[in-house]
Amino acid sequence: MASGSEECSGAATIRDVARRAGVSATTVSRSLRGISYVAPETRDRIARAAAELDYAIPGYLPRPQLIGVVARYPSQWFFAESIATIERTLRGTGHDLVLYGVGDEEGRRNFLERIAASSFLDGIIIVATSFDETERAALDRLGVPVGVVGGYAPGLPRVGIDDENAMRMATQHLLGLGHREIGLISFAPGDTVGYDTTWTRRQGYTVAMDDASAPVPSQWIISRESTVRGGVRAAEELLTLSRLPTALVAMSDEMALGALWTLRRAGIVVPDAMSIIGFDDNEMAIGSDLTTIHQPVHEQAERATLGLLARLRGDDGEDEDINLPTRLVVRGSTGPCRG
Amino acid sequence: MASGSEECSGAATIRDVARRAGVSATTVSRSLRGISYVAPETRDRIARAAAELDYAIPGYLPRPQLIGVVARYPSQWFFAESIATIERTLRGTGHDLVLYGVGDEEGRRNFLERIAASSFLDGIIIVATSFDETERAALDRLGVPVGVVGGYAPGLPRVGIDDENAMRMATQHLLGLGHREIGLISFAPGDTVGYDTTWTRRQGYTVAMDDASAPVPSQWIISRESTVRGGVRAAEELLTLSRLPTALVAMSDEMALGALWTLRRAGIVVPDAMSIIGFDDNEMAIGSDLTTIHQPVHEQAERATLGLLARLRGDDGEDEDINLPTRLVVRGSTGPCRG
Repeated sequence: MASGSEECSGAATIRDVARRAGVSATTVSRSLRGISYVAPETRDRIARAAAELDYAIPGYLPRPQLIGVVARYPSQWFFAESIATIERTLRGTGHDLVLYGVGDEEGRRNFLERIAASSFLDGIIIVATSFDETERAALDRLGVPVGVVGGYAPGLPRVGIDDENAMRMATQHLLGLGHREIGLISFAPGDTVGYDTTWTRRQGYTVAMDDASAPVPSQWIISRESTVRGGVRAAEELLTLSRLPTALVAMSDEMALGALWTLRRAGIVVPDAMSIIGFDDNEMAIGSDLTTIHQPVHEQAERATLGLLARLRGDDGEDEDINLPTRLVVRGSTGPCRG
Repeated sequence: MASGSEECSGAATIRDVARRAGVSATTVSRSLRGISYVAPETRDRIARAAAELDYAIPGYLPRPQLIGVVARYPSQWFFAESIATIERTLRGTGHDLVLYGVGDEEGRRNFLERIAASSFLDGIIIVATSFDETERAALDRLGVPVGVVGGYAPGLPRVGIDDENAMRMATQHLLGLGHREIGLISFAPGDTVGYDTTWTRRQGYTVAMDDASAPVPSQWIISRESTVRGGVRAAEELLTLSRLPTALVAMSDEMALGALWTLRRAGIVVPDAMSIIGFDDNEMAIGSDLTTIHQPVHEQAERATLGLLARLRGDDGEDEDINLPTRLVVRGSTGPCRG
C-alpha cells in the first residue's frame, strides 16, 4: 500500500495525463505551463485530459487560448451580431473571446497598449475597423494570425461584402422604379475609422446614378453618424430644402428607419411621396417593412472565424479575401415614382 | 566594462523591475509567473514596470487579468449595451473582457465547462441571466468575485432596476389616461433563463390592474420571444380576437415596436384606436416616438463593474443589491382612451 497512493486516492500524475493525451510528460508540462509552443490541437487534447483527470501542475494556473476581437461599436448591429457569432463559433475549440471596443480614441489607445504590453492573444479578429499605418505595424509585430470581418484591410484575410456593388444594386432598384431624383443618406466620411466602407458605398451610388445619367445635386447627399438618430437628423436637414428628391438610399437600416419616421411625422407618405431603401436587413427592417439590401452578417463572421482557426492549426487554405453575396429585399418602403 | 552589460545593452533585470515597482524580486517573479497570489494593485504596478523596462521572465508569457462576462443574447439591446459599457469601464484597469453567450444550451454548457476546466478568470459579471442551483454551485466553487447587471441573483452583489415598480408605472400611465382594457405583451415565461425578470414585470402589471379593479381577460396576456418578431407575432395573435383592448403594455421596446408596426399595417391608428407603451427606452424608441419606461443600462453596467473592481482590490463597500431609478418617458404612442 505504500506505493499505492495513486490508485487509492485517485490523484492523477503528469504521466497519467501524458498517457491519456498520447504525448510525453515533457509535452504535457510545456503545454500546461504555457511556456513554449505546443500545437493547438495537442494543447486542446492535453487540456481535456488534464481536466478529465482533475490534474493541475502544482502552483501553475492554466493559460487560456485567447482570440482578441476588435470592434468599433460593440453594441451596434453589425458589430454586435458579429461578436455573438464569433463567440458561438469559438465554442468547443478551446479558445475564448476577448473584446476590445475601438470606436473612440481611448479605446484604440487601450487596445494598442494591451497588445504592445503583452502577448497573451493567440489570434485577432477585426470587425469592420480600419487601422492607420502605425496601428497596422503594431498588429503585424504581434506575429499572430489576424482575420477580418467586413470593412477593408489590405493584405489580411477578410470575409466581407462588395459594398460598391451592393449600393449600386440599391440605387438601381430605385432607378428601375422610375426615380431619377435620388438622395443619399451617408455615413460621415470624416469618421476615419469607417472611411473605406463609406467611400466604397458612395462609389456604388455615384456609379449607378452616372450610368443612368441622373444628376446628383450635392445638397441631396447628407452625411451623419450611422445611427437612428443620424437618420433622423439627415431627414430633418433634407426637409429644409426647397426641392426634395423622390427617393432616398441610406447606408444602413438604422439611418433609413430614422429617416422613415421623420418623413412620416412630417406627413410625407412612404412610398407614395418618397421611396426609401436601407442597407443590412436587420431585424428592425423586417418589422418596419423596409426595402433593403441583405448582407449575411453571421456568415461573414463565421467564415472569418473558421478561417482564423484553420490558420491557427497551420492550414493556409483560407488565406483569402472573400466577398459573400448580398441581395435586394423588396418590401413596402419603395414604390414607383409618381413625380 | 566586463560587468557593464546591463548599462550598455539596456537589458533590464528582475531587480530593475523590483526597484521600479517598489517590491522585492521574489514578488516580481511570483507576480509575472502568475503562480501565487499578488494583490491586483501590486500586480498592475509590476506589470507596468516590466512593460516600461521591456522585461519578461525568460520562457514565460504574461498572464492577463480576465473578467468573464456572461450574457444570454450578446447582440440584443440590454446585453450589447451592457457589454460595451463593461469593456469601456475596464479600460486602463489592467483587466480584459472575456465574453460568454449563454442564451442556448450549448452556450451554457460551454461556459460551465470553461470555468470548470480552468481557473483563468479573475472575476465574473453576469448580465441579466439566471442560473439554476447546479450552475450557481459551479460559479461559487470558482471562488472569484462575481457581480450582476440586471436580472436577479440572490446573494450576489447586483445593480439592476425594480422591475415590478417600473411595470406598475407603465400600466398606471395607461390607467391614468382612462384605459381599463389593457393587454400585456410579455416575454415567454417558459424561457427559464429570464424567468425572474418576466415574472417580476408581470407582477407589476397585475398589481396595477388589481389596484384599479381593472379585469384582465387571460387572452389579452400574450407571451412571445423578446424580439421585434416576437412583438409582431403577439400583435398578430391579438388581432384574431373578437374583442381588443384599448391599450397595450409591452415588456421591451423591441416587442412594442413589432406590435406597433403590425397594428399600423392592420390600419389601427396609434394612439387614437390603440395606445402602446414599451420598456427600456432604447434608440429605436426615441426615433419611433414610442412612450416607454427608461432604464439606465449604462449606469447599471458601469456600477456593477466598478463594484467588482473594488471587490478585486479587497474593498467590500459595494457588496450590495442596488436598484437604480427608472422613469416614464411620454411620447406619441399613448393617448387618452376614446372607448
